[in-house]
Amino acid sequence: MNTKNLKVVIIGLGYVGLPLALEFSKKRTVIAFDIKKDRIKELINGIDRNLEINFKKFKTLKNILFTNNLKDLEKSNCFIVTVPTPIDKFKKPDLNPLLKATKIVGSLIKKDSLVIYESTVYPGCIEEKCVPVLEKLSRLNYNRDFFCGYSPERINPGDKLHTVANIKKITSGSTPEISKLVDNLYKEIVTVGTYQAKNIKVAEAAKVIENTQRDLNIALINELSVIFNKMNIDTQSVLDAASTKWNFLPFKPGLVGGHCIGVDPYYLTHKSKTIGYKPQVILAGRKINDKMGFYVASQMIKAMKKKKKKNKKKKNQN
Amino acid sequence: MNTKNLKVVIIGLGYVGLPLALEFSKKRTVIAFDIKKDRIKELINGIDRNLEINFKKFKTLKNILFTNNLKDLEKSNCFIVTVPTPIDKFKKPDLNPLLKATKIVGSLIKKDSLVIYESTVYPGCIEEKCVPVLEKLSRLNYNRDFFCGYSPERINPGDKLHTVANIKKITSGSTPEISKLVDNLYKEIVTVGTYQAKNIKVAEAAKVIENTQRDLNIALINELSVIFNKMNIDTQSVLDAASTKWNFLPFKPGLVGGHCIGVDPYYLTHKSKTIGYKPQVILAGRKINDKMGFYVASQMIKAMKKKKKKNKKKKNQN
Repeated sequence: MNTKNLKVVIIGLGYVGLPLALEFSKKRTVIAFDIKKDRIKELINGIDRNLEINFKKFKTLKNILFTNNLKDLEKSNCFIVTVPTPIDKFKKPDLNPLLKATKIVGSLIKKDSLVIYESTVYPGCIEEKCVPVLEKLSRLNYNRDFFCGYSPERINPGDKLHTVANIKKITSGSTPEISKLVDNLYKEIVTVGTYQAKNIKVAEAAKVIENTQRDLNIALINELSVIFNKMNIDTQSVLDAASTKWNFLPFKPGLVGGHCIGVDPYYLTHKSKTIGYKPQVILAGRKINDKMGFYVASQMIKAMKKKKKKNKKKKNQN
Repeated sequence: MNTKNLKVVIIGLGYVGLPLALEFSKKRTVIAFDIKKDRIKELINGIDRNLEINFKKFKTLKNILFTNNLKDLEKSNCFIVTVPTPIDKFKKPDLNPLLKATKIVGSLIKKDSLVIYESTVYPGCIEEKCVPVLEKLSRLNYNRDFFCGYSPERINPGDKLHTVANIKKITSGSTPEISKLVDNLYKEIVTVGTYQAKNIKVAEAAKVIENTQRDLNIALINELSVIFNKMNIDTQSVLDAASTKWNFLPFKPGLVGGHCIGVDPYYLTHKSKTIGYKPQVILAGRKINDKMGFYVASQMIKAMKKKKKKNKKKKNQN
């Protein structure tokens, strides 16, 4: 198989799919699909409500077709899935968007089709959860009739410096040949180069640990700030001093939210629990970070009460 | 007070005190004291059993006096304490060496003496634990008759690249004037510069979090390797892939031992517990790292058993 023969469609046009589709459109014809009618309407009119894309830069969007019509996808043979992978209210992976997209793709793939996932998942998820759905709906056999790839997105929402083209991209495929094909495809658009992981599982694991590491480091600084607050030590002064050591990592206390950092670790801890190991360190980090919003608010209320009391005292003295 | 008037003695000639004493001896006369007779004998003969110092480089050690005789310290007015601060079998701070050294110093200080500590401690330790001992034994008053400083050691045992002279050094003092004095003293020997922390507590806190951060990051990678082993995923391959992201921190799984990384966090967690907060993240990290030796050994035994079984099977087949 050759990248030239690939007819690419991007499934899901969020903060991952849209920049990816636009980047591909610089090099090849691409179909950009989203199930949301409103989103497609806006994109056709050059509006990105996420404010990630400045459409003025893309004067002639001649190589891209924004659509929510499945008929437009019938001739495609390369499906790149970039839908969100959130958690539910029990902090377990909510694979519904991923499986919904997979069902759509499963109904479209033909002999020799390639399905690439970019969504963050736990190791094993693509081949254990998505592939069976693809096989069932297509009545095709995995790694004989159709193939899979995994190339995790590394988009930093709002970051104008690190973009699709200049973030090194991990690629992987379900066979060595497919791995090379997926890698070549992404090489078209990622100017800083790609990194071919050993297999899909390794690529899945690599992605999920990136934000887990970040989450835990922020959790440590949050825990330190709780301790230092109790001791009337100014956390920022301590961090400033420690940062003068050559290998101290300059993390800051803060609230962890958004699509990724606070969510990805739960994908890994979920999988880990199902195979009989409850992660101690990762979950302790998550616990601290999840409580941080409440902690900051309660500290603020305490400070406000203190100030009020002081003012009242002052008033009474006058 | 002026650094010129300081008559420096180093108390404790381990992997921290010895390089420090030698570095000072390049600039000023220094007394190098250790309670261990053997150590002094060896040092006089140019032998460092820690292999940190190559005495051949120091042909004329004319500015340094190695001694275990307290009489040699009587004219000193600046005591730099570099004794170890280990943990006991219950993983609580063992302050005995520190307090023993403090008692020696307390019996020697006079009006306007300066006592600087370099040992790793928890925030508040110097002023809560050491100063009362100094006051009691000297019958002098803190911050009126004598003063304190804290300048945490950042020696990386065995590291020939990061040495006293080229590791930025945190300094602090018990008054703004003393802080400046301590800073000026260390500026004599630290060519890459110093960093004056706000106060002693901030400097103590900064030191103790440096290795805590390192310990936790290694703990995360250890926990990941436990998870990935269970899933038959090669951890090194995952780390290699993740390391292609610009902000992934390249820690490796491993055993955490030695004087510092596995010990320092317990100083902080001990103090934290005494003020009513049990650190979740830091202790989870310590737990994983403490168990790692046993885990690695048991994995090895498992692998050996597997191999033995295989060999036996082979033998039976032949």
